[in-house]
Amino acid sequence: MTGSQPTPLFERITLIGTGLIGSSLARVVRRDGLAGHITVTARSQATLDTMTDLGLADAATLDAAEAARNADLVVLCTPLGAYEGIARTIAPALKPGAIVSDVGSCKNVMFTDVAPHLPSGVHMVPAHPVAGTEHSGPEAGFAELFEGRWCILTPGPDSNEDAVARVAELWRRCAMDVEIMTADHHDQVLAITSHLPHLIAYSIVGTANDLEDDLKKEVFKFSASGFRDFTRIAASDPVMWRDIFLKNSDAVLDVLGRFTEDLTSLQRAIRRGEGDKLEDHFTRTRAIRRGVLDAKQE
Amino acid sequence: MTGSQPTPLFERITLIGTGLIGSSLARVVRRDGLAGHITVTARSQATLDTMTDLGLADAATLDAAEAARNADLVVLCTPLGAYEGIARTIAPALKPGAIVSDVGSCKNVMFTDVAPHLPSGVHMVPAHPVAGTEHSGPEAGFAELFEGRWCILTPGPDSNEDAVARVAELWRRCAMDVEIMTADHHDQVLAITSHLPHLIAYSIVGTANDLEDDLKKEVFKFSASGFRDFTRIAASDPVMWRDIFLKNSDAVLDVLGRFTEDLTSLQRAIRRGEGDKLEDHFTRTRAIRRGVLDAKQE
Repeated sequence: MTGSQPTPLFERITLIGTGLIGSSLARVVRRDGLAGHITVTARSQATLDTMTDLGLADAATLDAAEAARNADLVVLCTPLGAYEGIARTIAPALKPGAIVSDVGSCKNVMFTDVAPHLPSGVHMVPAHPVAGTEHSGPEAGFAELFEGRWCILTPGPDSNEDAVARVAELWRRCAMDVEIMTADHHDQVLAITSHLPHLIAYSIVGTANDLEDDLKKEVFKFSASGFRDFTRIAASDPVMWRDIFLKNSDAVLDVLGRFTEDLTSLQRAIRRGEGDKLEDHFTRTRAIRRGVLDAKQE
Repeated sequence: MTGSQPTPLFERITLIGTGLIGSSLARVVRRDGLAGHITVTARSQATLDTMTDLGLADAATLDAAEAARNADLVVLCTPLGAYEGIARTIAPALKPGAIVSDVGSCKNVMFTDVAPHLPSGVHMVPAHPVAGTEHSGPEAGFAELFEGRWCILTPGPDSNEDAVARVAELWRRCAMDVEIMTADHHDQVLAITSHLPHLIAYSIVGTANDLEDDLKKEVFKFSASGFRDFTRIAASDPVMWRDIFLKNSDAVLDVLGRFTEDLTSLQRAIRRGEGDKLEDHFTRTRAIRRGVLDAKQE
């Protein structure tokens, strides 16, 4: 930094996709001058117009290759299923030394769907800012979304250290704590903390919706705290979550198997009237809450 | 009501158990003068001392029969498993015309465990104020807990109408909306909206706790929104929930069976890579959220 005007971290940033995460990132970049120039690209002109109206885009185009040209940092902020097509499209336009990063909830996909298409001299830095709400779209974003949350980077063994450091700094400027781990480990951890809870919420809300009409009406009317939380989680973006389950299927199916075993064991305890077993289990999980609170993610 | 000093709804109220719900009710009764006299009873002297220190008890005793003597309204605010013993204990002390009510999350238990022990001339009015937090104990209570939430009454076919009306008025004074239905129907609805979500949360948090140490540590560290919500739910009172699952086992096992079918179907879609099926399901559940919001329980 020199003088009172901070030097931008990147001269030109390109955001591919401007939903909740992409538009929130754009807000921080704009507010704090983290880039000299923001280019956005999306699938619909309406989205681009919204970003322009919000003052979050210096340039906006439906052409992803055009958007990526001359960018110092390109951030994929789309559902995971779009990654491979985008990588193919932007690869020829990327300049040497450009960094390609993302914000997705599964990180192996960057190595399987993106890396093979990138030209040498372009640096890939997979990133996952662990933040979100059940709302979608550019208007749903807000600059404070990331504050105090974790951002996990999963560089490969050959990643460019300077590129990793610059992406880490971007997310630190968003007030996130940055952590580095392997993509495999990330995908296992998130399968438990995020993907399985979403799958369960999607499932139970569907179960309620399939009830007989009179019961269903009352279920929504009297939804107590548990069910209400689930409906919120199950209101998350359908396409984004479809892609997460398809791309992280191995880890999700593994943890789903473990969960089903545990649920079956509680089911058996209820059927047999084994109160001690239930109480023991519930007492243990109550103690775990403290572990989560101590980890300061509340 | 006469003049500026409202006539109490009940001359003498006795609360059996003074945890989150019992102590919250005591706070409203005290604040708004809904009873001329509040007697509390609990299993431990420490709890009674806390209630007295909080100014929420005119009389406090470890003897439930003594507490129930001369009461116009007795409210059971204990875990469901204690109901039968309490009913046996207080029955001989109840005065003719006394009302016995409760706040439990399963309502058939009032007919199976309490009603058979009550002397004739005593009126039973099962009630369930659908409100709560994951915190327990007399200090966790607050008068605003009930505001804007539902209270469900499940009188039997022979219930005394005046007694039902008086209990309904008590909860309306707590700022709740009162609804009347059968105990069977209540227990089915709550199995879905509350009991199953709690069972699932208890299960998934247990699953996470049984992971290998390095993974487990990271799961708590990076707990994203889904898992964090579950840990909150799974921190609810273990004994209270043990009893709910034991007393409402039929309805819980029924809805658990439906849920497991639905989860298995999503699992199969993930394994087979059926993206359309996942997206369809997630789109439907997102729409359901609106139904819940429209029902004004958010």
